[in-house]
Amino acid sequence: MRTGNEWFLYNCWYAAGWTNEVEEGMPLARTYLEKPVVIFRGADGRYVALDDRCCHRAAPLSMGRVEGNCIRCMYHGMKYDPSGQCVEIPGQAKVSDNHRVHSYPIVDRAGMLWLWMGDPEKADVDAIPHFTPLDDPEWCGLPKRCYLHYEANWMLIVDNLADFSHLAFVHTGTLGGSEEYATESAQAVNKLENGFEFERWHRSSAQPPYLAAVTPWDRELKVDRRNFVRMYTPGVFLMDTQFGPVGWDADEPQPELLEFRNCQYMTPETRRTSHFFWEYLRNFSKDSDEVGETLREAMFKGFFEDKVIIEEQQKLLERYGDFQPRGIASDNALSHFRRVWFEAIAKERQMVASTQPSIQNAIL
Amino acid sequence: MRTGNEWFLYNCWYAAGWTNEVEEGMPLARTYLEKPVVIFRGADGRYVALDDRCCHRAAPLSMGRVEGNCIRCMYHGMKYDPSGQCVEIPGQAKVSDNHRVHSYPIVDRAGMLWLWMGDPEKADVDAIPHFTPLDDPEWCGLPKRCYLHYEANWMLIVDNLADFSHLAFVHTGTLGGSEEYATESAQAVNKLENGFEFERWHRSSAQPPYLAAVTPWDRELKVDRRNFVRMYTPGVFLMDTQFGPVGWDADEPQPELLEFRNCQYMTPETRRTSHFFWEYLRNFSKDSDEVGETLREAMFKGFFEDKVIIEEQQKLLERYGDFQPRGIASDNALSHFRRVWFEAIAKERQMVASTQPSIQNAIL
Amino acid sequence: MRTGNEWFLYNCWYAAGWTNEVEEGMPLARTYLEKPVVIFRGADGRYVALDDRCCHRAAPLSMGRVEGNCIRCMYHGMKYDPSGQCVEIPGQAKVSDNHRVHSYPIVDRAGMLWLWMGDPEKADVDAIPHFTPLDDPEWCGLPKRCYLHYEANWMLIVDNLADFSHLAFVHTGTLGGSEEYATESAQAVNKLENGFEFERWHRSSAQPPYLAAVTPWDRELKVDRRNFVRMYTPGVFLMDTQFGPVGWDADEPQPELLEFRNCQYMTPETRRTSHFFWEYLRNFSKDSDEVGETLREAMFKGFFEDKVIIEEQQKLLERYGDFQPRGIASDNALSHFRRVWFEAIAKERQMVASTQPSIQNAIL
Repeated sequence: MRTGNEWFLYNCWYAAGWTNEVEEGMPLARTYLEKPVVIFRGADGRYVALDDRCCHRAAPLSMGRVEGNCIRCMYHGMKYDPSGQCVEIPGQAKVSDNHRVHSYPIVDRAGMLWLWMGDPEKADVDAIPHFTPLDDPEWCGLPKRCYLHYEANWMLIVDNLADFSHLAFVHTGTLGGSEEYATESAQAVNKLENGFEFERWHRSSAQPPYLAAVTPWDRELKVDRRNFVRMYTPGVFLMDTQFGPVGWDADEPQPELLEFRNCQYMTPETRRTSHFFWEYLRNFSKDSDEVGETLREAMFKGFFEDKVIIEEQQKLLERYGDFQPRGIASDNALSHFRRVWFEAIAKERQMVASTQPSIQNAIL
Repeated sequence: MRTGNEWFLYNCWYAAGWTNEVEEGMPLARTYLEKPVVIFRGADGRYVALDDRCCHRAAPLSMGRVEGNCIRCMYHGMKYDPSGQCVEIPGQAKVSDNHRVHSYPIVDRAGMLWLWMGDPEKADVDAIPHFTPLDDPEWCGLPKRCYLHYEANWMLIVDNLADFSHLAFVHTGTLGGSEEYATESAQAVNKLENGFEFERWHRSSAQPPYLAAVTPWDRELKVDRRNFVRMYTPGVFLMDTQFGPVGWDADEPQPELLEFRNCQYMTPETRRTSHFFWEYLRNFSKDSDEVGETLREAMFKGFFEDKVIIEEQQKLLERYGDFQPRGIASDNALSHFRRVWFEAIAKERQMVASTQPSIQNAIL
Repeated sequence: MRTGNEWFLYNCWYAAGWTNEVEEGMPLARTYLEKPVVIFRGADGRYVALDDRCCHRAAPLSMGRVEGNCIRCMYHGMKYDPSGQCVEIPGQAKVSDNHRVHSYPIVDRAGMLWLWMGDPEKADVDAIPHFTPLDDPEWCGLPKRCYLHYEANWMLIVDNLADFSHLAFVHTGTLGGSEEYATESAQAVNKLENGFEFERWHRSSAQPPYLAAVTPWDRELKVDRRNFVRMYTPGVFLMDTQFGPVGWDADEPQPELLEFRNCQYMTPETRRTSHFFWEYLRNFSKDSDEVGETLREAMFKGFFEDKVIIEEQQKLLERYGDFQPRGIASDNALSHFRRVWFEAIAKERQMVASTQPSIQNAIL
């Protein structure tokens, strides 16, 4: 097994949370890459992400109090500004520059907070993998943006999304619709420097259950489904889904298609647990709360089908160290993704190896 | 502490489960010797035991679907035959010989499934320690064959059953009946190459509570109790129990005895947890469901008295590494059993040491 | 991180429990310094503390039966006297001197049981840090003496009590009363060989909520509060609290003060968990059960405010090994205490290093 930070790339943007998870005056405690972070929103409306340990004795700042753009530790009252600098120690006149915690770059893009765990000077906001449908009025989202916690390494979720043949078996009664899905010709995967893309058609099939539950069409109507999938490091999954009458052609204008735009973000909490964020937008029945709620429930049901099997995988891989995987043809996407990921880590580690001092916990 | 597989003998039959635990179409997931196994019953009525990890990405086959004599992984749909060979990968024409999981020999003997975790070629079904009363119509069992999970190394349960003086203190109000039981002359233990035997009499005593609750006799009648105990590796406990009027002679015909035949099987799940299977058969009141149910409850009550103390032992031994046991006279049976066991392991390990390659988990 | 017994001093008295925790015939199982101990009260009224593992196979004596001044293991019936010597093995004529468990010196001082985990020959009862108000009729205690279990190293609780500025932020609504408490002039700490003392005044302030709830005075009356704190190794906190009218002088007789006497004892259970015992005595409304109950509830509420933050500290320090504390001015007391503590341990370890044999668990 890989250990410690051999799993993580630091100089990249991670999906950290939806803005609706950070309520006013309520700091959010969350762990990323095995580091504790507190996220809060200052009076100026900007989000702040700090190391969630007061520099004094490691009390959690997330149990503290937001004051203006600052946060005060509610153990001995030390107050930190958004840069992480301590600006007040009650009963003490002088505060040194060393009285500070790390401040992580964090940026709101249409409701998703993007977090940079590496060198702040390298944080380039233009590199954020923003998903434009999130703030495009053409698209209507679910009643609430969604989160699931996984007791599994995030790469097992990436694996899951890299091979759609699992829809046939895991999601027969929800997102998939039929076991024939698995036997259609293998997808052509377009390998990228930071991930992959593929297109997958499922032709002349029944509408899958999640669609049939909200379809404005006759439920019995057969459809051609097209999925266009992109997966980028560190764990950004974007998908365009289009349903149309059998025989429709992607190169022709298709005004009557039922379409979805879906993002799913996998972020490592630790090497064995993950954050999973998602939104599912549609181009039809946009005024219907009922359609939104039905879709939300259907998606959760489908994602729980994945979650139960992936968490079992994690347990088996953790408990028994002797597993040797056997590749199959449809592994090409996930294999490429892992190669790209671990090469990037190796490269990053080479650069910082000589500069990172070893720190020892001096209280316990 | 011994670590890893220094605890386990592989080339021997282990009690794995009662057939009533493996319902049709419902694969059973169970761990033995720190290896995950799935057991299911094929359409031909035969039981199959496979490594419970799909060879592709370690998804549990026990979450899969039984199809005829095969089982299909419900992640990406790979299908395995009883030999462990993958016979279908959806969407892929060719399946290699490497796409397989280990298949463990498993045999049904009168409702107990016996499992062989070692080299399949060495599995000799004649060596199964079958307990003949299990399928002898002279004997009537409990309403259901029984299972308990132990948070303790199985050898601590073997220890328990190797010294009957504990009946006096642990089971005074259930299986034992009186503290005098402990002070009767120490048992003569017959040491065997694969275990031990002993006979233990408790003379002129009240009927123990579990018997008094179902006795066809006057409850106040004093009895002589004879137990004839056999314990074999890996953890097979068989006991004949006979109650008769005070002064009865085991060498004379005794048609009127109340008799029991009892088997208890201890199988390591891990080095710190165990499976415990048992049946308790009688030669009287065979038509009475009420007697069966009363006995079943009394036995569970007694076995829970053991379980609570044995699991505490496990905790104390695990938490504090400094314990040094002091032997007492009645340890002779358990000491012999451990000697036999660990010598067999040492011998087996010597034979396989040079042939076992080290395998590294390549996913996590 | 320090490991194993680098945390613990053995040759000193530890607060082990209130006598009201050891009911007649009910042995108490408790762990100290990562060793399991059973405490019971013999027929002669004296308390006994033994290693909580029968010397035979490590069954817990705390599941045993008190018989006179002895305790009997209820596994195989071995009986131990207060010195730890086994005096009876059922069914066995001879008991050797080796059939014994360790007996720890234990002494009752006004309801607190003091336990000596080190060399019994060095146990000097005159060194017990007895808190005299506990059995002084001038002082009236709570309806019941109190205990809390902490999921934190006991030194984090000592830290907490070594700096009273936390009252301002953690206990604003309970024990503290106002955030100004933190900004008053830093306390002058008197450093001792085995701990420290300090005096802290909070002048001309509102009565804190816990006092206001039971005050015989007008609740709106401003007061001067004086705390006189002593902290001694291994974790003995004693405090005199005095409330008087604004301007009162500690050097003058003050018959009308509202006073409290408080002891808090922190004892390591393991390096990551602790026992916390306390009593809170008063010099007023001594006949009122209601005042006693109100104070008890207020204290628990305050101590839970500490507990939640300290246990979070523990989690953060345990999970993330990279924390580097930054000192502040009010750390002088806790820094001194840690220095004294770890110097004493280093000295003790030097003395015993050559005499302690390494013992290996021979059952598991």
